[in-house]
Amino acid sequence: MNRPLEEIPTPALVVEAAAVERNIKRLAAYGAEHQLRIRPHTKTHKSRMLAGMQIEAGAAGLTMAKVGEAEQMAGVSEDLLVAYPAVDAARTTRLGALAREKTLRVAIDTAVAVEALGQAARAAGSTIGILVEIDVGMHRTGVATAEESLNLARRVEKTSGLRLDGIMCYPGHIWAPADGQAPSLASVSAQLREALDLWASHGLRAEIVSGGSTPTAYQSHLVGQYTEIRPGTYIFNDANTVRGGFCEWKDCAARVVCTVVSDAVKNQFVIDAGTKTLTSDLCAPARESGNGYVVEYPEARISRLSEEHGQVDVSQCERRPKVGDRVTVIPNHICPCINLQDALWWQMADGSARPIPVDARGMLS
Amino acid sequence: MNRPLEEIPTPALVVEAAAVERNIKRLAAYGAEHQLRIRPHTKTHKSRMLAGMQIEAGAAGLTMAKVGEAEQMAGVSEDLLVAYPAVDAARTTRLGALAREKTLRVAIDTAVAVEALGQAARAAGSTIGILVEIDVGMHRTGVATAEESLNLARRVEKTSGLRLDGIMCYPGHIWAPADGQAPSLASVSAQLREALDLWASHGLRAEIVSGGSTPTAYQSHLVGQYTEIRPGTYIFNDANTVRGGFCEWKDCAARVVCTVVSDAVKNQFVIDAGTKTLTSDLCAPARESGNGYVVEYPEARISRLSEEHGQVDVSQCERRPKVGDRVTVIPNHICPCINLQDALWWQMADGSARPIPVDARGMLS
Repeated sequence: MNRPLEEIPTPALVVEAAAVERNIKRLAAYGAEHQLRIRPHTKTHKSRMLAGMQIEAGAAGLTMAKVGEAEQMAGVSEDLLVAYPAVDAARTTRLGALAREKTLRVAIDTAVAVEALGQAARAAGSTIGILVEIDVGMHRTGVATAEESLNLARRVEKTSGLRLDGIMCYPGHIWAPADGQAPSLASVSAQLREALDLWASHGLRAEIVSGGSTPTAYQSHLVGQYTEIRPGTYIFNDANTVRGGFCEWKDCAARVVCTVVSDAVKNQFVIDAGTKTLTSDLCAPARESGNGYVVEYPEARISRLSEEHGQVDVSQCERRPKVGDRVTVIPNHICPCINLQDALWWQMADGSARPIPVDARGMLS
Repeated sequence: MNRPLEEIPTPALVVEAAAVERNIKRLAAYGAEHQLRIRPHTKTHKSRMLAGMQIEAGAAGLTMAKVGEAEQMAGVSEDLLVAYPAVDAARTTRLGALAREKTLRVAIDTAVAVEALGQAARAAGSTIGILVEIDVGMHRTGVATAEESLNLARRVEKTSGLRLDGIMCYPGHIWAPADGQAPSLASVSAQLREALDLWASHGLRAEIVSGGSTPTAYQSHLVGQYTEIRPGTYIFNDANTVRGGFCEWKDCAARVVCTVVSDAVKNQFVIDAGTKTLTSDLCAPARESGNGYVVEYPEARISRLSEEHGQVDVSQCERRPKVGDRVTVIPNHICPCINLQDALWWQMADGSARPIPVDARGMLS
């Protein structure tokens, strides 16, 4: 069933089992040390097998963005958080049904979501746990003030079918460690404290305070209020996390093995991985670094991607590959790359690999 | 089988049948007028049904980037061009086999590709037609000079299993009509003429001279040497083709119907389409225009995408949607968006839609 790596057609997304195990174990140990529950975001891998490994290593539950992902992961964990504001009937109806079988929580930031989820839970005869999302600076979703979070929390308390479970935030805007220091979560902590105090003064308790993001993961204990964290990328890592200073290239478990298909243009070779394999995502902490990192040719720069071509500038390289050779690319952002694959190649210590399904790929809502 | 649009879960990639028919018909008429064969690039739609409509409208054959796409499209056309330099055994073996059943051509730009394809054709007992690719300015693939094209052509002629069929180029770098003028293909024409003259002086004939690209499609007759063109995007169009000046918004057949899931952050609403639906591709002729065009709110700007969130800045809008409302987005670049979907919603004149499969999605090589 396992095949030698050189027999696998390219472009191939190869995941090194040992590196995945190390990455999972490292975060699990951090969580245990600081009494922080780990609730990995499964959007990164979309794989039941990998989610199972995270649960096995002590994760308290799983995080999903899509209802379809939650339905897939319901086979792996009893404790599911949809960290996405479900407001439409297509989503809320399925969530109401899922909450009959599992402990299901949803993060919300509007009264519309409270009403819609309450209605769906009542229709299904289930109870949905609610986390109120607070915007801690990314300005994507989440309410802006402690007062607004209190208003939503009180509304949840009054809504039959819902159970007020706590607060969620996502510090996704905190990236580059300033001056080589750890990312500062001080303002996140201050905002959470203000909201928790206000809730407490109105007799409301947040049993869960859920933080997230891989770049801030190992600073989570400094926040003080978190009871759990939801990193996703940490299981694989990518050029973003390396160039952000959060891990090393050897910690990147997922890589794209490519074939060199052309060297007709001067100072360049072309690989068979373009935007339909690597995506157009730039490297957030190093936007000029190109479209990924070529492991065997660190001086090379992936200068342009078309859909199926990656143009690699070798003007700074002393040596270069021949047409037909293989090279290995670490993508800038691994999550959307995984989403392009029906299967990953799971590579063992002997170098051989077997396909494992990306179960939740193609889930629309 | 057809469902009302409002019942379809979002994000939904909806394709207006009437607009597709108009787009196909328009290019077919242009080809007929100028005696240019149309060989649509199927990478855009990856759908056998849509390829069938193109063939029905008079297309001479189909273009593919991936071998897996060619295998899918072999059910639709007898005449297939893989416009991609296949050099590795995984690709060439399957192409050799496919050439037993169909007229199969492959574009190449290195001697390695000539040898690999010749060997595969001989092993399969088939003949593969070869187009020599010339780089006309995009500097992605293709040989730089007429002399190099001659050298490859002579090598093809001497290689058993291969048949020299002509020349291919891709003017993918020609985008913005300078000063409102049509894109200039004058230098493309000069390069092709030089190569064809050189080939002729050595007794070699290019039966096919294949050009391409949607932006340059309707200027193809000005080149003079083309016998066929390979546009892909024209079947749907997108924000790239509109903002490049090559069509109007009404010609955009493929749109993403989204739900507004949050408006908690000031001057912003959030849609349920992020990079896993719209991709991170910027608009090539208008890189500052944001991550797509919101049809109902033209003054809105999709300012940032996460994987499943699209943040829409409404600071310039007089009115704005409510949470739970639906809005329609025309993506910057439709081809990689289609590649993210298992099915498209095919919308009829009455507004209802049914799913049609994206047959060649997920083809790795």
